[in-house]
Amino acid sequence: MKACGLIVEYNPFHNGHVYHMDQAKKVTKSDCMITVMSGSFLQRGEPAIIDKFHRTRAALRTGIDIVIELPYAYAVQNSDIFASGAVQLLNEIGVSNICFGSESGNISYFIEAYENYKEKEPIFQQELKLGLSAGLAFPEASKLAYQRIGLTTKELDLAKPNNILGFSYVKTIMDQKLAIEPFTTQRTKNEFHDQIITDKIASATSIRKNLTENNQIDSSVKNTMPEATIEQLLQYKESSGLWHTWEDYFQLLLYRVLTMSSEELKEIHGVNEGIEHRIMKTATKATSIHHWIELIKTKRYTWTRIQRIFTHILTNTTKKEVQKSLNNTPPYIRILGLTKNGQAYLNEKRKEISIPIIFGFKKNTDPMLIMEERATRAYYSVLQTNPRNRLFHQEITAPIILKK
Amino acid sequence: MKACGLIVEYNPFHNGHVYHMDQAKKVTKSDCMITVMSGSFLQRGEPAIIDKFHRTRAALRTGIDIVIELPYAYAVQNSDIFASGAVQLLNEIGVSNICFGSESGNISYFIEAYENYKEKEPIFQQELKLGLSAGLAFPEASKLAYQRIGLTTKELDLAKPNNILGFSYVKTIMDQKLAIEPFTTQRTKNEFHDQIITDKIASATSIRKNLTENNQIDSSVKNTMPEATIEQLLQYKESSGLWHTWEDYFQLLLYRVLTMSSEELKEIHGVNEGIEHRIMKTATKATSIHHWIELIKTKRYTWTRIQRIFTHILTNTTKKEVQKSLNNTPPYIRILGLTKNGQAYLNEKRKEISIPIIFGFKKNTDPMLIMEERATRAYYSVLQTNPRNRLFHQEITAPIILKK
Repeated sequence: MKACGLIVEYNPFHNGHVYHMDQAKKVTKSDCMITVMSGSFLQRGEPAIIDKFHRTRAALRTGIDIVIELPYAYAVQNSDIFASGAVQLLNEIGVSNICFGSESGNISYFIEAYENYKEKEPIFQQELKLGLSAGLAFPEASKLAYQRIGLTTKELDLAKPNNILGFSYVKTIMDQKLAIEPFTTQRTKNEFHDQIITDKIASATSIRKNLTENNQIDSSVKNTMPEATIEQLLQYKESSGLWHTWEDYFQLLLYRVLTMSSEELKEIHGVNEGIEHRIMKTATKATSIHHWIELIKTKRYTWTRIQRIFTHILTNTTKKEVQKSLNNTPPYIRILGLTKNGQAYLNEKRKEISIPIIFGFKKNTDPMLIMEERATRAYYSVLQTNPRNRLFHQEITAPIILKK
Repeated sequence: MKACGLIVEYNPFHNGHVYHMDQAKKVTKSDCMITVMSGSFLQRGEPAIIDKFHRTRAALRTGIDIVIELPYAYAVQNSDIFASGAVQLLNEIGVSNICFGSESGNISYFIEAYENYKEKEPIFQQELKLGLSAGLAFPEASKLAYQRIGLTTKELDLAKPNNILGFSYVKTIMDQKLAIEPFTTQRTKNEFHDQIITDKIASATSIRKNLTENNQIDSSVKNTMPEATIEQLLQYKESSGLWHTWEDYFQLLLYRVLTMSSEELKEIHGVNEGIEHRIMKTATKATSIHHWIELIKTKRYTWTRIQRIFTHILTNTTKKEVQKSLNNTPPYIRILGLTKNGQAYLNEKRKEISIPIIFGFKKNTDPMLIMEERATRAYYSVLQTNPRNRLFHQEITAPIILKK
């Protein structure tokens, strides 16, 4: 069997994702679709609107065969670390190719850009350093450095979020000389931050906004998602009581910050350069998560960066343990769910896979899994007792197996 | 001026306390009544029903002249540490005497018991050790050891809670040779655990139970408290939204435990002998604080001991910092509130007081104050944004000054 890898967050799984999945299957001519998906918290440092298991179920019912969890240590990170974790996991499970959406839509531009980059890497690093020391945030500084070394062209704008991610995937594949062929399909509309829902395709951001503001699935947003997603969104809300947003975590995060010393805060992953004092000083003034971030924000500390820091505080994730985890390649493949077709693929490939395949949390001695468990526990902490304890149990007894 | 010291929790300040205060004033012939009062959390490891400032106001309006905060590091501890902190603070502020309520009601029995104790201290320690290693909880083991060395007599039953506390006060005074005369008045009814309200005198436990169960001040409980307490209870509830009980902290405590490592948990004050594993293992099964304690409880780990541990986890109080604080004598006297008469007393005595008198939290560099601030922040963390931020401010701008 030939497998295609997709790197996703599915927050939630919508028609744009279905379209990309179908395209990917077609252009790569694969017969097994494997995704690496963020778990409880997302790359931009936000809680997922519904939990990983409900997002997994929606994906499996709509055409995905295997859902692998992207470990927390890779997931809530900048695009380079995120990409490298995801691509390595797909490589371990033996995909022949990966396919990503991009603004550019032409893989040859990415490959050219990579070759160009390798020649000029020292200058890139120097430019990046300059940008950072001038007070720019990491994404800004790297965009600028890409421009300076001439990587951004008319055909490949490395200031666009999906191009940046795509470039990181290609970089990982080529740096590590992985036997994976990269493909890209063009994202035609609804860029990252679009907040308007027009018809059947809308961005995940606009869908989440619509859902959490209206607290129901109205007819406009209903058109933008496959049936299985609507079902899972409704089921999660009915059984767990809410669709998660950062504001649900305000009391917990505030409590945590208010009872930490600044020494403890400094040990949290992402807390550097004295930002701990800013976080603490603003804590007793904040009236919401949104307001708190506004109070902390600077040119260097962007919204996303603060959200990631907030996530690491909430999940009690330290610099030390992240560093320790990232020093090695991924130690396991955790499967959140799979179809019959996915099982057949696994049976065929199992002997070639060199790292353990795990499902639940029975033996969580690996530092990366310990972080994962804490993150998931923090994620569910805003729920009432009954759904919470039941969902903790689900984390132990995963995966979801779809028999169809 | 001659001052009398009382050691109190006033949770809440009720007619029994008024009666004791009046008796104390009469028998000690004092003209200034000074209390050392627990702050946000109480000796048995519980959040106070209303905050320290509202409890202070009720006491000042009913006849107390100065309210000193018993630092968290002494307050949420066994009776010996609690007593030693309170008595030392009263000594520092220059009281001539202290007066405590006891089941015995006769001070000479306490003094005799102390002399007896000093003779037999090595045997007592040995008996205590035996009891502890047989798996008894500390209060049980010391009760038994008191019996074994013949300290418990018909006149002084050292298994009764107020006799035990009283004995600890006397022990501190006599061990440290303080120039304080101890007095005791008899507690005639409504012992510690009485849960029935009969007329004008009821135990604090029964009053809290009535208040929090009915969520209002009904006519029976109204009769048991002075006007000022009723006023403060109502005002706190109106402005802050609740009367605090442990159950209000269930989500915060659970979140905290679920995102801690067992190594971190072991650093918390009071967590010993592997109890951390029991706390963690039961966390995902508990449906309330009450249920959680039931799941953890053993012969050695009594309800009170677990409540104290829960308090230290909630406030993030470590063994290390408590030990560091208790190695020294109290480093400051923090005054929560005072009357004109109290101010006059302070003006007269100020020069003789050798440690700093502080009010708000402007310069909280002392480890004991840092613990206090964290405890208070944890205490208010269950409130909505507006009362919470306002009350944090109050902590900084204390004290309450009553001009009457």
